[in-house]
Amino acid sequence: MKKCNNGVSMKDVGILVLGHGSSLPYNRELVESLAQIIQKNHFGPVKTAYLNTNGPRIPEGLQSFSGTGVTKIIALPLFLAHGVHTREDIPRELGVDLQSRRGLVRIGELDIEVICAEPLGLDQCIASLAYRRAEEALR
Amino acid sequence: MKKCNNGVSMKDVGILVLGHGSSLPYNRELVESLAQIIQKNHFGPVKTAYLNTNGPRIPEGLQSFSGTGVTKIIALPLFLAHGVHTREDIPRELGVDLQSRRGLVRIGELDIEVICAEPLGLDQCIASLAYRRAEEALR
Repeated sequence: MKKCNNGVSMKDVGILVLGHGSSLPYNRELVESLAQIIQKNHFGPVKTAYLNTNGPRIPEGLQSFSGTGVTKIIALPLFLAHGVHTREDIPRELGVDLQSRRGLVRIGELDIEVICAEPLGLDQCIASLAYRRAEEALR
Repeated sequence: MKKCNNGVSMKDVGILVLGHGSSLPYNRELVESLAQIIQKNHFGPVKTAYLNTNGPRIPEGLQSFSGTGVTKIIALPLFLAHGVHTREDIPRELGVDLQSRRGLVRIGELDIEVICAEPLGLDQCIASLAYRRAEEALR
């Protein structure tokens, strides 16, 4: 079974994949598809929630882990870069500390540690994918 | 020299990397860093512009190719998914057709074809990078 660095079994960790939300369907479709791919690699439960417009919203998304047996939840913002959404809005909706990006949240009848991950950020794979989109546009 | 599928030399193609813009510095830092990585792989000029808040804005970004000798410009939105920004706001700011996402734009004294690429979209690399961010949050 996959273990992370501090010895927590990954099957005890829930992942709440977070999208921006949109009045058009594409953000939701992308977030749900990425969550399905992540679920294939992750032993614990993977769920989705949205900051705006789409549902479930973030507090409902957290509560959806009630009864799953997870001991930690990683909130995983599918955002390219930090901004007001990832620094303030999402931690506030999660009910965690804005500086440490973690805290205990009451889920069902348990206090569960919720940790907000960093956004995607700088990585060669983003640059490569973007360049591929540029090449495709020329065809 | 690198050729794309329709025989246009890539050195004759300018890439305008487009960011959302933000009141915090992180979106701009990410967009500029990704543009620098893209420039290392691209023979033609690579420039940046922003939809909101940061500068240069999109019309100025297009005009910045004046005198570079490019015969086409690919506008490359660094957005995860399509939404109102990529479907409407960006094509409108570029001055291209909203359906075909392309058009001729007067740049300096020339009419140059501008093509708006697709956003990053669904790709295994985004899911892998996101899962890495989840693992890092547990450390």
